[in-house]
Amino acid sequence: MITQIEKAQQFHALHIKGAPLVLFNAWDAGSAKEIEKAGAKAIATGSWSVATAYGFDDGEKLPFDLAIANIQRIAQNTQLPVSMDLESGYGDAPEQVANAVAAAIQAGAIGCNIEDSFPADGSLRDVHAHAARIKAMRAEVDARKVNFFINARTDVFFQSGADTHNMAMVDACLQRAEIYARAGANGLFVPGVVADELIAAIAARSPLPVNVMVSQATPTRARLAELGVARISYGPGPYRIAMKALIDAAKSALQ
Amino acid sequence: MITQIEKAQQFHALHIKGAPLVLFNAWDAGSAKEIEKAGAKAIATGSWSVATAYGFDDGEKLPFDLAIANIQRIAQNTQLPVSMDLESGYGDAPEQVANAVAAAIQAGAIGCNIEDSFPADGSLRDVHAHAARIKAMRAEVDARKVNFFINARTDVFFQSGADTHNMAMVDACLQRAEIYARAGANGLFVPGVVADELIAAIAARSPLPVNVMVSQATPTRARLAELGVARISYGPGPYRIAMKALIDAAKSALQ
Repeated sequence: MITQIEKAQQFHALHIKGAPLVLFNAWDAGSAKEIEKAGAKAIATGSWSVATAYGFDDGEKLPFDLAIANIQRIAQNTQLPVSMDLESGYGDAPEQVANAVAAAIQAGAIGCNIEDSFPADGSLRDVHAHAARIKAMRAEVDARKVNFFINARTDVFFQSGADTHNMAMVDACLQRAEIYARAGANGLFVPGVVADELIAAIAARSPLPVNVMVSQATPTRARLAELGVARISYGPGPYRIAMKALIDAAKSALQ
Repeated sequence: MITQIEKAQQFHALHIKGAPLVLFNAWDAGSAKEIEKAGAKAIATGSWSVATAYGFDDGEKLPFDLAIANIQRIAQNTQLPVSMDLESGYGDAPEQVANAVAAAIQAGAIGCNIEDSFPADGSLRDVHAHAARIKAMRAEVDARKVNFFINARTDVFFQSGADTHNMAMVDACLQRAEIYARAGANGLFVPGVVADELIAAIAARSPLPVNVMVSQATPTRARLAELGVARISYGPGPYRIAMKALIDAAKSALQ
């Protein structure tokens, strides 16, 4: 039986710049099992898919105990490392975010995403206030003597459409990355960025392995690898693919 | 806001011999919402899909409180009538089955499936012992002054392969149907039967509207209507379709 620490070490080692870990995001135990069988090296949830499957809106509307019970069932149904999308930590205060991480660890997770925007409106938190939250998470992990991959997500590129993205935003993103790294983050997740040159600039200068979320607008996986990305997430994509097949078949059966 | 009783009446009225109600089975709130949008007239769960999505084997291995919480979320996320697959009633004793129905009603269901085989090995229960269970369900429904569609599933045709099915089994099935109808059942669910002449014989002589589960081996929907079927279920099919799409996309992303 592989231990929590071994799984976390395995997960850290999978973050290789230029040979990215691919996370085809799951939402429940059943989808996680299928994704494992399809050849995944790790399982990560996406909060939008989890919330939608449970009938809730995204943005911490899914009660936290359901999110934790769900990640526990996922961890019990796979031998792979499991990372939980903790959204914005289910609370503003560092202690609340530390409690969320503690629950994720107890449920069997070896890593998490934590985002620096407010769940209510998506606006960015003060960078130092957010760093204090990451520091509290790291302290909680250390106190538990476990290994845990904190993937610091910055929503700089979610503040405006892709046509407005520029190098100043890359600078803002990297400034945050430096501060989050010092607070104890292990990875930098930058959803929303799609342009080759911006991704390349982030990957070249980030102090942390860079995670990009794929969409119709992003470069191919091969190109993302060339640009220096270390982790690729599919976010809501896998759930949408499954639901698209369901809808098509349902329409055909119900017409 | 449509009441429980109105939804149940609506559901009863959808069972029309020759113009069957089509139930494209859901497993969670998210899938139920998509199936509603695709044009469904009612939502019904299939226990295999629900258990699999939660990471459990079928056969009442999914803890009952999770099954109830799941059906409650489904009922809260749709305006359609919701029928719950109660498997074999989560208990042998009539009181236990009555309790299961009470929980389903409280969670918002207006109907259920109840099967006459044992969850452990799939063998058939004594017909009178099972009728006592249905009678207890009906008494519970009446005591609550609600309307509830009890779909009595008989597993006569699940006892052996389709090549062994014959008219003696139709007689056994109909004998059970008569007894279940007198105990308070509203519908007869006969999964596993696939041959036109056997389906036609059941539909011609059943005291209750007949429900057939479609598979690769069953006649087309149009033909099932001609044969006198009043309700068509897809069982695990919809979940498998969604997972097939997920697996294909996962393999492509992870290769």
